[in-house]
Amino acid sequence: MIKVGIVGGTGYTGVELLRLLARHPQVELRAITSRKEAGMPVADMFPNLRGRVALAFSTPEEAGLETCDVVFFATPNGVAMQQTRALLDAGVKVIDLAADFRIKDIAVWEQWYKMEHACPDLVAEAVYGLPEINRDQIRGARLIANPGCYPTAVQLGFLPLLESGAVDAGFLVADAKSGVSGAGRKAETHILFAEAADNFKAYAVGGHRHWPEIRQGLERFAGKPVGFTFVPHLTPLIRGIHATLYARLSRDIDLQALFETRYAGEAFVDVLPAGAHPETRSVRGANTCRIAVHRPQGGDTVVVLSVIDNLVKGAAGQAVQNMNILFGLPEDTALADIGMLP
Amino acid sequence: MIKVGIVGGTGYTGVELLRLLARHPQVELRAITSRKEAGMPVADMFPNLRGRVALAFSTPEEAGLETCDVVFFATPNGVAMQQTRALLDAGVKVIDLAADFRIKDIAVWEQWYKMEHACPDLVAEAVYGLPEINRDQIRGARLIANPGCYPTAVQLGFLPLLESGAVDAGFLVADAKSGVSGAGRKAETHILFAEAADNFKAYAVGGHRHWPEIRQGLERFAGKPVGFTFVPHLTPLIRGIHATLYARLSRDIDLQALFETRYAGEAFVDVLPAGAHPETRSVRGANTCRIAVHRPQGGDTVVVLSVIDNLVKGAAGQAVQNMNILFGLPEDTALADIGMLP
Amino acid sequence: MIKVGIVGGTGYTGVELLRLLARHPQVELRAITSRKEAGMPVADMFPNLRGRVALAFSTPEEAGLETCDVVFFATPNGVAMQQTRALLDAGVKVIDLAADFRIKDIAVWEQWYKMEHACPDLVAEAVYGLPEINRDQIRGARLIANPGCYPTAVQLGFLPLLESGAVDAGFLVADAKSGVSGAGRKAETHILFAEAADNFKAYAVGGHRHWPEIRQGLERFAGKPVGFTFVPHLTPLIRGIHATLYARLSRDIDLQALFETRYAGEAFVDVLPAGAHPETRSVRGANTCRIAVHRPQGGDTVVVLSVIDNLVKGAAGQAVQNMNILFGLPEDTALADIGMLP
Amino acid sequence: MIKVGIVGGTGYTGVELLRLLARHPQVELRAITSRKEAGMPVADMFPNLRGRVALAFSTPEEAGLETCDVVFFATPNGVAMQQTRALLDAGVKVIDLAADFRIKDIAVWEQWYKMEHACPDLVAEAVYGLPEINRDQIRGARLIANPGCYPTAVQLGFLPLLESGAVDAGFLVADAKSGVSGAGRKAETHILFAEAADNFKAYAVGGHRHWPEIRQGLERFAGKPVGFTFVPHLTPLIRGIHATLYARLSRDIDLQALFETRYAGEAFVDVLPAGAHPETRSVRGANTCRIAVHRPQGGDTVVVLSVIDNLVKGAAGQAVQNMNILFGLPEDTALADIGMLP
Repeated sequence: MIKVGIVGGTGYTGVELLRLLARHPQVELRAITSRKEAGMPVADMFPNLRGRVALAFSTPEEAGLETCDVVFFATPNGVAMQQTRALLDAGVKVIDLAADFRIKDIAVWEQWYKMEHACPDLVAEAVYGLPEINRDQIRGARLIANPGCYPTAVQLGFLPLLESGAVDAGFLVADAKSGVSGAGRKAETHILFAEAADNFKAYAVGGHRHWPEIRQGLERFAGKPVGFTFVPHLTPLIRGIHATLYARLSRDIDLQALFETRYAGEAFVDVLPAGAHPETRSVRGANTCRIAVHRPQGGDTVVVLSVIDNLVKGAAGQAVQNMNILFGLPEDTALADIGMLP
Repeated sequence: MIKVGIVGGTGYTGVELLRLLARHPQVELRAITSRKEAGMPVADMFPNLRGRVALAFSTPEEAGLETCDVVFFATPNGVAMQQTRALLDAGVKVIDLAADFRIKDIAVWEQWYKMEHACPDLVAEAVYGLPEINRDQIRGARLIANPGCYPTAVQLGFLPLLESGAVDAGFLVADAKSGVSGAGRKAETHILFAEAADNFKAYAVGGHRHWPEIRQGLERFAGKPVGFTFVPHLTPLIRGIHATLYARLSRDIDLQALFETRYAGEAFVDVLPAGAHPETRSVRGANTCRIAVHRPQGGDTVVVLSVIDNLVKGAAGQAVQNMNILFGLPEDTALADIGMLP
Repeated sequence: MIKVGIVGGTGYTGVELLRLLARHPQVELRAITSRKEAGMPVADMFPNLRGRVALAFSTPEEAGLETCDVVFFATPNGVAMQQTRALLDAGVKVIDLAADFRIKDIAVWEQWYKMEHACPDLVAEAVYGLPEINRDQIRGARLIANPGCYPTAVQLGFLPLLESGAVDAGFLVADAKSGVSGAGRKAETHILFAEAADNFKAYAVGGHRHWPEIRQGLERFAGKPVGFTFVPHLTPLIRGIHATLYARLSRDIDLQALFETRYAGEAFVDVLPAGAHPETRSVRGANTCRIAVHRPQGGDTVVVLSVIDNLVKGAAGQAVQNMNILFGLPEDTALADIGMLP
Repeated sequence: MIKVGIVGGTGYTGVELLRLLARHPQVELRAITSRKEAGMPVADMFPNLRGRVALAFSTPEEAGLETCDVVFFATPNGVAMQQTRALLDAGVKVIDLAADFRIKDIAVWEQWYKMEHACPDLVAEAVYGLPEINRDQIRGARLIANPGCYPTAVQLGFLPLLESGAVDAGFLVADAKSGVSGAGRKAETHILFAEAADNFKAYAVGGHRHWPEIRQGLERFAGKPVGFTFVPHLTPLIRGIHATLYARLSRDIDLQALFETRYAGEAFVDVLPAGAHPETRSVRGANTCRIAVHRPQGGDTVVVLSVIDNLVKGAAGQAVQNMNILFGLPEDTALADIGMLP
């Protein structure tokens, strides 16, 4: 059994990790920390877990994280980087669901996250946990930087286009829409039901923290600098991201075959038939990214539609996928949920 | 392996049966019928099933239902009663998710369902598939009448009160609220998004078909006639029923202990601690009924709060639970999903 | 022109007052206070008001409230009682949308609101601003206690039944459902979109502050003590309250005629035809209470369905209605909005 | 008083016309037709209109439309073109809310709408009713083609950029999101609540009927052919369109000043301050288009955010605005509603 600890279990990625791990046949949940809620059974905060997760929140000090085989950080940005080195030194694998280890260029990270990085050397070591591009490196890693939700949907959508050089890398647009759980379980006015329901808006058009993370990936795929515009929107979904991607073809290519071939062996990327429109609910609760590729009216514009559940393939599910790879388990262990429709 | 057929697979109970049965380790899905959609892969209609269910819809004639071990009817009322006898004669077990076999009094059934019943003798034989009251009879049954969604939530909430004789059976009120999927996947104006979203209303106050079904159960629990008022409401949920039940205490009793004792051995009924308020999302996708019992200000009014997912414990999940009992499997096989929160 | 001030304009009742008063032909908006947001144009916080309300928030000290003709308090409970006497002494009329002056029994108020009342004598003077029962007293009042949202819907629904003595006052049940804006514009976790959407729950079954307010009204209508159970629920609406009321008939009566007669002259209470089911969206944005009365299966149980927009007839609209009465204007001035459907 | 008739009043644009016109001080509603519902009071179908609109639906034959001053067509495509000539001949002005007269190139229209046009000469005469570009022609028109909902939001967003020649007209992208009421009040499965709630998807990426309508406008603004990609999405709003527009700057320009200047005199186009993000609810129920223009990270990509209420500025409100212009009334008569927030 894999002994698992979770740091920061009171947010949505924390409860989603518990929902998935509680049914993982190889996992023994050892600790879930919350300084503020220490002592409270997690099922009191998240009653869906009643009868399924017996753990109570504990303080980080009591949690015995160094005796775990793997620790997930489901914490705000800036927490994992303070605690990771000690865990690694104790032989514990670390999977960070926050952004601390995602961006290789420390200066860029510090500019966007507005703090000094505590351990640049570990950033260098960390493996970006997108299995579809980094499966082999994940296998041997000590430290996984689990990708952001938007970055997962957008990178998987652009990946075949950029790897193949089929599009002009100088003008890429990602128009992305996220459900409100993507903003986390924080007491903030703008994500109240009465603010976010029956309402739609863009935000952070001037600059969003996922922009440099995505750009880093796109430049790796393209092998050169890219021009990339990213506009996120808040839409009245609980869960779900829909990324609509635009690029200009630089040569003629069978787009459907390109995508199907690239993802042929991937259990969690589903390329839809030509002409299809993926819907977010088809992946609600599932660790799947569904993608369709279009070329409207046969012109030179490519439109890619990419959907994920931001809390599963966009966070906790991908983290479990990474854990399965790390520990040599079948990649879909505990990830067999079918999207909940309706 | 249990060979399973589903009649009428294009509605919400049909796709939910598929979602659950696709992960059932003892089930082999043999056929799913839809005369209208014959030939279409079910995953084309319900893309959440892509890669998980390979079946295509077939006509009833091609489906070979008589070679199945069990057939589920996820059809409109009045269909199962036409086809059940032939299946039973062929040795096939039948679980009807519609109302054809739920009401023992044929005259009452015909009054509320406005058609002549095709096989009153099978109504007499059928077992009402609420495991919490009929587990033993289900075990040996050929034909299961799977309860309605409202009836499941309301009966489980009133059961301990009426069995114990603790309340005045002459004045029982069930104020019930259902998500819109309870109305089915029918092209009707009043359940359009633009009609049902951000809107709340009661309906059928003058009389709803679940009223005689619930009354039949309550009278069985009480062992005498009951006075019962039932007011259903449509609320902007996809899934979920919340039943708020009112009764007057006829003697002093420890209500919390009463409920905890009655449901002590039940895997799918969860009695919450005193003072709690169950929320529908805690059972979203799960086969659980969560119940809390209150006695406001210590008066003589009992208030019971009972929540289920109308498509799971209120339909497809309970049907699978009944199948598990019928075939001697652990009752929770393929029913281990944890409520999806958020 | 009536010079109007608003204290506490950053919540939903504040912005709704502005939406209504900005189009009131006899009103001059003089000040809206918010200590925290002083200096910010209200249209920066509430962009629907751009081009329509030029005011900026001011501190209470700068606001010059004592030069207004009327001041609305759209503040948390306990604020208005601190400031009302000075305003009344300056000749300003006061309409409090909070609960400070609603409950005549000071001990009961202090028990439920958990603070000492600052001015019991003003409670005695205050007129409860439900025009359908107190229109004459409102006309000459200095201080109006604007009713709560649930109390408006529930009292208007029970009023004809209790005034006429047609029901058993000893057992009244109100099962009420509110949209999330009823909880206010507060940064609290439980009313986040990702918590409240696609979710339904009861709350405060053990005791809600609107219970004593409603009971006070019901006892006045009945002319004697009542037995009253109140169960509020949170439903995924932005706006809207649906109250479902239950009582037992104590004598035979034409319920439809009773309601139609009682509300014949009321512009803002609409009794629907027999058999109807009011929906909350029919009053969205409108100052109307729509009511239907049922007697299921001709039994002795009366079911009343009563809907309002909690921010209009349940708060800001009723406050403007009271202002219109106070100043001798046509009661529907600035209250002619038609419910927004869809 | 302007005598008004409405053809086809059972859909959302019909009820929205009634909501607006019922409060129009210069309008006398004479007839509203529905062959199917003839005889039913409109307030029975749309209870928000109870007490405000006394009309019943009538058959087209009984309606006496030729005695009206103006007739609105709120009908499916292809109806207005059959009836318009007779009305014009009778001296009646016609405002068509459908697409019959929007596209000047008859061949293009017939290709996209899949029917033969009944009166190409009237298409030539018709004025495209976007007041911000055609106010003078509207004033003297007999026949107004009221723009589509997406075309209104997208054209108003691109207009200043193309008129000024500031962007590359060869690569324009509109990523548009619509609430579900945009699909009309039709009994279709895909717009059921249980299908569209908590779900997000693109549709018609291969070609949407609003694409040629928008392209026609953009080419007029630019004075040359344009390259234009249009991707509509369905989002779980009742009302609201959010268009996110992308273009590449071809020269340096003060975008904020460009937009503010272009719309300086427009009552119904509100250019937000630099850096702002308009939200759909700020225009819910209002005839306003709110626009913000961004240049992310100072690059050469322009992002325009444009929001409208699809039933108001995108349909019925704009039609009333056109009627006001036609009849020489102040343009905002009966259009003073403030967006309903929350």
